[in-house]
Amino acid sequence: MSKGIPKRNEDYSLWYNELVKKADLAENSPVRGCMVIKPYGYSIWEKMQAALDKMFKDTGHTNAYFPLFIPKSFLSKEAAHVEGFAKECAVVTHYRLKNAEDGSGVIVDPEAKLEEELIVRPTSETVIWSTYKNWIQSYRDLPLLVNQWANVVRWEMRTRLFLRTTEFLWQEGHTAHATRQEAIQETEQMLDVYAQFAEEFMAMPVVKGIKTPSERFAGAEETYCIEALMQDGKALQAGTSHFLGQNFAKAFDVTFANKEGKLDHVWGTSWGVSTRLMGALIMAHSDDEGLVLPPKLAPIQVVIVPIYKGEDSYAPIDEKAQEIRKALLAKGISVKYDNRDTHKPGFKFAEYELKGVPVRLALGLNDLANNTIEIARRDTKTKEVFALDGNITGKVEELLADIQHNIYQRALGFRAENTTKVDTYEEFKQLLDSKGGFIAAHWDETAETEAKIKEETKATIRCIPLDAEAEEGRCMVTGKPSKRRVLFARAY
Amino acid sequence: MSKGIPKRNEDYSLWYNELVKKADLAENSPVRGCMVIKPYGYSIWEKMQAALDKMFKDTGHTNAYFPLFIPKSFLSKEAAHVEGFAKECAVVTHYRLKNAEDGSGVIVDPEAKLEEELIVRPTSETVIWSTYKNWIQSYRDLPLLVNQWANVVRWEMRTRLFLRTTEFLWQEGHTAHATRQEAIQETEQMLDVYAQFAEEFMAMPVVKGIKTPSERFAGAEETYCIEALMQDGKALQAGTSHFLGQNFAKAFDVTFANKEGKLDHVWGTSWGVSTRLMGALIMAHSDDEGLVLPPKLAPIQVVIVPIYKGEDSYAPIDEKAQEIRKALLAKGISVKYDNRDTHKPGFKFAEYELKGVPVRLALGLNDLANNTIEIARRDTKTKEVFALDGNITGKVEELLADIQHNIYQRALGFRAENTTKVDTYEEFKQLLDSKGGFIAAHWDETAETEAKIKEETKATIRCIPLDAEAEEGRCMVTGKPSKRRVLFARAY
Repeated sequence: MSKGIPKRNEDYSLWYNELVKKADLAENSPVRGCMVIKPYGYSIWEKMQAALDKMFKDTGHTNAYFPLFIPKSFLSKEAAHVEGFAKECAVVTHYRLKNAEDGSGVIVDPEAKLEEELIVRPTSETVIWSTYKNWIQSYRDLPLLVNQWANVVRWEMRTRLFLRTTEFLWQEGHTAHATRQEAIQETEQMLDVYAQFAEEFMAMPVVKGIKTPSERFAGAEETYCIEALMQDGKALQAGTSHFLGQNFAKAFDVTFANKEGKLDHVWGTSWGVSTRLMGALIMAHSDDEGLVLPPKLAPIQVVIVPIYKGEDSYAPIDEKAQEIRKALLAKGISVKYDNRDTHKPGFKFAEYELKGVPVRLALGLNDLANNTIEIARRDTKTKEVFALDGNITGKVEELLADIQHNIYQRALGFRAENTTKVDTYEEFKQLLDSKGGFIAAHWDETAETEAKIKEETKATIRCIPLDAEAEEGRCMVTGKPSKRRVLFARAY
Repeated sequence: MSKGIPKRNEDYSLWYNELVKKADLAENSPVRGCMVIKPYGYSIWEKMQAALDKMFKDTGHTNAYFPLFIPKSFLSKEAAHVEGFAKECAVVTHYRLKNAEDGSGVIVDPEAKLEEELIVRPTSETVIWSTYKNWIQSYRDLPLLVNQWANVVRWEMRTRLFLRTTEFLWQEGHTAHATRQEAIQETEQMLDVYAQFAEEFMAMPVVKGIKTPSERFAGAEETYCIEALMQDGKALQAGTSHFLGQNFAKAFDVTFANKEGKLDHVWGTSWGVSTRLMGALIMAHSDDEGLVLPPKLAPIQVVIVPIYKGEDSYAPIDEKAQEIRKALLAKGISVKYDNRDTHKPGFKFAEYELKGVPVRLALGLNDLANNTIEIARRDTKTKEVFALDGNITGKVEELLADIQHNIYQRALGFRAENTTKVDTYEEFKQLLDSKGGFIAAHWDETAETEAKIKEETKATIRCIPLDAEAEEGRCMVTGKPSKRRVLFARAY
């Protein structure tokens, strides 16, 4: 098959867009800024969901579901929150259509106007905290550890498949605690869960850190994040975990009686990852031939392609291939046996490269005669000849583990090569325009300098890494003293 | 604990509402007509989802995701479809809020008006078929077997938790086929899947049938349904599967080249079940003490309650209880060990009765001395003493299977007692007002008679059962000839 995707070094952005479409992950919908997640893309998202959901449950959380709509007045109750979201809200104002009197078709019925407009949730803190008010009376009701899998809408002017869409799918955890300390621990725990998921499942190394005040979630006291580096040297925020302090508890008057019977406001957290992770996954590993998927998230881990001409040669190959297929399935490995007679092996090879299937087995008459099978791995694009009567399932299991490990190491190596300490603003600007990457530099901790850098270079402070070492230095822009380096990058 | 729910025979409707709230299944949200599905309720829904999702995948379907919003013009493309849904659509007209100039707070920004209003999907046929146009060119692209788990919105004036809410969760399958025959087979297959799920997992017997033309889905050629009988003698439509003919393919110009290269319109189906099933589950089995859950859908299948006074008696009981807990978990049984010292055993017993936990084990010092354990089952409210050194896990597995079977049989018996053949309209009306239930009667197959019966009695034709026997008769209202009985009931 003709892949029809440009090379990464020619046009990274176009490479991404075309890959997403050609690999059947997603496409633009007729609704501006909204995407259709196609079956193959959605099956990767389902694997992400399953892994994350298990991690959430293992840390004591349960799922629930809250309304899609939020009364307009709710959004305004937390001042910073409404400030942050007002400009990107889809607003429901009417609830009925009717036939136009002039016969021109269906119009919005002006008589069916809502008394109070409804916002399509951009995030659910407000409607959830208004509910928590009724769920929490005493310390015995705490902690409340709830997650929701849902769609949210943020009206975006410039959208890109998975990375920035008007509607996206996500999970949002919303927890309530009796003490400040416990809420901070929860915020940090969920950041760790996200980092572990990114590294173990997505094979994508991340930096854990804290956002600067100007990059904080609207309504949070502190925003923690994980930041990943894409192959074009741009950063991508892959997940956030917010310590909300008592902000939403105060906005919605959520109090609890502590053990001594004294009333206090509840402490909150919220945390989320979204279908944006699909974009991160694609950009972290894939190459000019197509997707490279980590085995733990690949919907098809192994494809078997029989190579035959005509019915006679097919039967013995088919018999052996079916045997291998069953042995792999018995080990819990997801296998596709592509025995279509409408497409040639070369076409199939290209298709599964495009779709990022980690391991490919090919079996022909010569192989049967020679007691061999060809085993190819997607990450290194190498292949080897293996004994047909050997331990093929063992070999495949080993390969899957090795691919998972290898693409993580490769991404880790790439990040190391593309993380640079810089001490002057000149060097900073040059580096951004040459190879990009993460840049560790000193900053004077003022919003003014941060804004100036963003305006002049389009680079933002991705985070103050949690593991940043204490280091006396001077802000690269103002020369004022600084105690540690922060991480800059241009970002998605 | 005080359950505070009325008895079924006093006020069935209030019993239902209070049970839903008291058992922590769902509650009304601050948004009119929208519900909050609470963690316990959502965990039942998750079990339903998991079972259904597996059945969909086992029959060759994959999941995908389509936009929440539908351009208003799309809805109008299929004439019957817009007719059916226009009156209950939430309409997005603007996309931004701003601060009011008079300082009165946040208002909808009139300048951010959408060129074309967007409908929040009441169902997704239109946006999906507009997408399928690009996915289908040839017979090789068929069948297309896609399902979506999503939220939908239908503006409802009178709502009830789970049964009828403005927003609800559901799955909607949308398939495309090369032939009429294949599409009809798919429609019937998915009806069978729904019936199997209802009977095997929900332990709820259903009648499979076909809707009359006036009860058909807006845009379908034929609507198949499963109908269940609730304990108050009212029917509940538990799932529908629609044969769409070529209606949506024609509306969105979806054609394919067949093997001979000739273009034809594609044949379609759609099918769905929703969180309404939660309402059905509750009303099919529960009693005056609370929920009765089928073991296959119970989030907690077994609860262990230790009965002790003070630390000394706790230790030996705890040791034994933990041992039983581990043995049950090892068998894949979900167990809750409730060793809270803040609540008495009697309180806990009532709580788990209310929440429908199928099996309860209670263990005290006397039991240890006598080598016994008390095993209670929720469905029959009976308990027995079992040997503490006996095969407790085996006993529990047996009980869970027996409860699943028993509540199905009980519901089946109830339905048999409450399904009546009636030949006169007088008898029909009397029966509706006395005990209700399914009424099998002759009907002249006209929409006029159907409407008259509905207006005069509030009973509707639930379906023409697939297994209805040929029987010559006369319409109970008009006396015109009829070839089979159809199933009437008042319904949710």
